[in-house]
Amino acid sequence: MDMLKQAILDRGKVIDHEILKVDSFLNHQIDVSLLNEIGKEFKERFKQEKITKILTVEASGIAIACIAAQYFNVPVVFAKKTESKNLDKETYESEVYSFTKGKHYNIRVSKKYLCESDRILVIDDFLANGRAAIGLKNIIEESGAKLIGLGIVIEKGFQEGGGILRKMGVNIESLAIIESMDENQINFK
Amino acid sequence: MDMLKQAILDRGKVIDHEILKVDSFLNHQIDVSLLNEIGKEFKERFKQEKITKILTVEASGIAIACIAAQYFNVPVVFAKKTESKNLDKETYESEVYSFTKGKHYNIRVSKKYLCESDRILVIDDFLANGRAAIGLKNIIEESGAKLIGLGIVIEKGFQEGGGILRKMGVNIESLAIIESMDENQINFK
Repeated sequence: MDMLKQAILDRGKVIDHEILKVDSFLNHQIDVSLLNEIGKEFKERFKQEKITKILTVEASGIAIACIAAQYFNVPVVFAKKTESKNLDKETYESEVYSFTKGKHYNIRVSKKYLCESDRILVIDDFLANGRAAIGLKNIIEESGAKLIGLGIVIEKGFQEGGGILRKMGVNIESLAIIESMDENQINFK
Repeated sequence: MDMLKQAILDRGKVIDHEILKVDSFLNHQIDVSLLNEIGKEFKERFKQEKITKILTVEASGIAIACIAAQYFNVPVVFAKKTESKNLDKETYESEVYSFTKGKHYNIRVSKKYLCESDRILVIDDFLANGRAAIGLKNIIEESGAKLIGLGIVIEKGFQEGGGILRKMGVNIESLAIIESMDENQINFK
């Protein structure tokens, strides 16, 4: 997706060879016009599939999932990372390790919002080590729903997540796949 | 806003007299069509104001802010609650106490994404004790930007946040104000 790649080149920043900062348009400040183009592109790529729900994980995934959901006409469910009085007792749960934050955390979805007849599109901002996506996949399987595909805005192609998930048979559509990057250059696949 | 009030009556649930669960349409599963009506209503209520940016706080505020931002044609910035390698070192910061979660946390916004010429609309799902809104107000003031108004989906009118913020001179537009509630009944102002 050219408009996205151009935004990454113009407004992204690589730090320490491994962190791609896109906080000016994707996960701190959000360029909602760009997100609309991203949402349309996800719809185009999954137009053959009957999707009943979009699943993501807080916080950065929520913006992309909600804007995209407008093109699918389906509700969004986001997995929660923190305990809260507001969350049901009955949840599907999975442990995830975050390399960015350097710690384990649990993600949870209330059992009320996933059911066996659901055909789920998972949407997230990044696919790197794949831990969050695998956690969401586990939750979907536990619920009996069907994981139809994984829509990713930026895949770090040089990290293992994409390979692991494709080997598991997950249909991944990544709008920009980065093959290599350093402080001076970002190369797309 | 009648459609919202009806959703609260039909799909909300009061627990222990003080918690209003709206996780079936607002802050866990998200009804994106309803959010579009909410976004339009915020635009209608702030149409006289030149808004340059919408500010919210992760996680539940993000969905509402992004859908609303489409009607304002402005970017969204969301304050972060957790430390991350991805966040700039230079941030505006404010401490907030969450009654729902029973703990203090810091909210942070990168200094890059708020500037003196900004005219900010703060959007959030709930206004109860007002701590998150006051934290965002502090951050806006520290940046030199101008807080134009506060757009709230559900105000718990029987808690102190609305009163405190109105006394501070904040222009609050709440789409549904709950005067009282218990397990059997929800009364709007």
